[in-house]
Amino acid sequence: MTSLSQLAVREIVTQLASPSEAWRREARAHLDELTKPLGSLGRLEDIAAQMVSIRQERSTTPFRKAVYIFAADHGITAEGVSAYPSEVTHQMVLNFLSGGAAINVLAKLHGVEMNVVDVGVDADLANLSGCLDRKICRGTRNMLHEAAMSDGETAKAIEVGYSLALAAKQKGQDLVAVGEMGIGNTTSASAIAASLTGARTATVTGKGTGLDPVAQTHKRCIVEAVLCKHFGHAEEDRVSDPFQVLCCVGGLEIAAMTGMMLGAARHGIAIVVDGFISTAAAAIAFAMEPRVREYFFAGHRSAEPGHQVLLEHIGIEPILSLGMHLGEGTGAVLAMPIIESAMSLYNEMGTFSSAGVSGAVK
Amino acid sequence: MTSLSQLAVREIVTQLASPSEAWRREARAHLDELTKPLGSLGRLEDIAAQMVSIRQERSTTPFRKAVYIFAADHGITAEGVSAYPSEVTHQMVLNFLSGGAAINVLAKLHGVEMNVVDVGVDADLANLSGCLDRKICRGTRNMLHEAAMSDGETAKAIEVGYSLALAAKQKGQDLVAVGEMGIGNTTSASAIAASLTGARTATVTGKGTGLDPVAQTHKRCIVEAVLCKHFGHAEEDRVSDPFQVLCCVGGLEIAAMTGMMLGAARHGIAIVVDGFISTAAAAIAFAMEPRVREYFFAGHRSAEPGHQVLLEHIGIEPILSLGMHLGEGTGAVLAMPIIESAMSLYNEMGTFSSAGVSGAVK
Repeated sequence: MTSLSQLAVREIVTQLASPSEAWRREARAHLDELTKPLGSLGRLEDIAAQMVSIRQERSTTPFRKAVYIFAADHGITAEGVSAYPSEVTHQMVLNFLSGGAAINVLAKLHGVEMNVVDVGVDADLANLSGCLDRKICRGTRNMLHEAAMSDGETAKAIEVGYSLALAAKQKGQDLVAVGEMGIGNTTSASAIAASLTGARTATVTGKGTGLDPVAQTHKRCIVEAVLCKHFGHAEEDRVSDPFQVLCCVGGLEIAAMTGMMLGAARHGIAIVVDGFISTAAAAIAFAMEPRVREYFFAGHRSAEPGHQVLLEHIGIEPILSLGMHLGEGTGAVLAMPIIESAMSLYNEMGTFSSAGVSGAVK
Repeated sequence: MTSLSQLAVREIVTQLASPSEAWRREARAHLDELTKPLGSLGRLEDIAAQMVSIRQERSTTPFRKAVYIFAADHGITAEGVSAYPSEVTHQMVLNFLSGGAAINVLAKLHGVEMNVVDVGVDADLANLSGCLDRKICRGTRNMLHEAAMSDGETAKAIEVGYSLALAAKQKGQDLVAVGEMGIGNTTSASAIAASLTGARTATVTGKGTGLDPVAQTHKRCIVEAVLCKHFGHAEEDRVSDPFQVLCCVGGLEIAAMTGMMLGAARHGIAIVVDGFISTAAAAIAFAMEPRVREYFFAGHRSAEPGHQVLLEHIGIEPILSLGMHLGEGTGAVLAMPIIESAMSLYNEMGTFSSAGVSGAVK
């Protein structure tokens, strides 16, 4: 059965075109003329070529950069899957607004506009200045017993992110980091990773915000039970419908991130994917429409074991690998100066002929 | 026999103290109070703790950052070891001064003061505005037939770098990247890597600026012949005297980088080591005085195979790994925004108590 909500999502993804191969080739040719040994900028050359193919113009720096942090709560926290109590989601939203969180510091240092979006925090934040009120409901249901979200809630959450991508386009943003805050959401991400990739729950279930080994084993059992409940899941089975995965074991912030990524790709905005949860949203988007990958930069490889599984599944290579596991978009924003460096080099370096430098001996 | 020059170097290294363990512990305690799961900033926490232990104060950002690029020529280029002709060293110095090189772009983007030091370019650069004239001679001798430098030249080159570190201290610089330009200098770095670590020449000899496989094999044979000439070298032997290694198979820019690193450590300035050649200089400094390592940040892992050998030998883990192999200090400067991010997080994040965020459930 295909619901109306699923049809709406299908319409979203059909509008998504690939970046330009012609512009990518032109970028490669230009890179080879710059005063450096061929290929000596390594990954920075790939980044520049990808960015040029997305923008389809010789880019100008500086970029307009932004980070979007989607916050929501998770019913599964009732099962004791997190080292932190559920109210920390709300408290951290307040911390974002008062400027004390890690993402505030990084966004300020690197000139990145910061946006906090309440898509499902279990607290009344409607009158909170500085927080975008897009609340769909006060957190997901407990996915151990029922679907985390209805079809309608899931589609609405996707639409929240999709609309914000259009707004980002209208604001002239070129590069958006997509991050989250939601106590309990590594459990969702683990369930998503297992169901989309067929990886074993032991492979994709990590410490989250800091579980001890006993609590981590408990979390893995919960993930297994959740998969069994919704998909009659035997290990190493894959679930083919990403919308169903999102409804059953996702989260409101994860659905909104998926929507933001699809929307950004639709409007030719480059996307910096963050850690495990952000990459779970990216994997859902990728399952809906594989072309979205060509708009992705993977900001970093986090310490969560399931993250690497998802990165490989999507086929994206992280820019940084610093053992971070914080979320909030921090790893994505930290990669932005690297992406910006690649584009500055592309735009500003001299060529062999203009600088009067001899080429390689033939 | 201990020469006067070696005695002067010995005096330099005896003044070098370790960073403060007490400050490192204080930094760790502070990091654990910040509004994030314990350890969730990964390597950034190590970087911040190391920086605090070096500065021995609660650091303030922004840093005063600088890059020093030491340029010199190499007699060994007569043996056809490089893809580019020797005059490219001179041409690239001119490119640095006119702003078209990769390092210019990165230094400008990341707010890093750029210094170009002629320590042995085979051209008359004395009247060139913007280039520090510290020329010792017009390049090294051909180390296939004789020592690359005399004891006196080597000591003078070390002193050039050492003095610049004092000047950096007086200018209030906190963080210095140490890079180079010198056609032929990966051959020196390979010989240094093999003689200090005992690694096989095949393991430490790479493509440099872009040799084809045949030329790379030729280069490896040259490195073997050089080692045999100076150290009667059988593979996997180590040479115990780093000063002798520097004289016989080093370079003027490599000796100056070694001096700059020893001097920076002496004055409590954190050092960002760049790629293969910069790390060869770091390995010489480390062999002279192991405590210098505690002042090192390894900016990146380059594509040169010998680089990883040297990083492991010294015991430092690169911040970035992007397949770059350009030199000029580019990998080191690219790591600076990461180091700066670590310090900003350390200085500016809120604590659990100040932000009213609940801690982990016990």
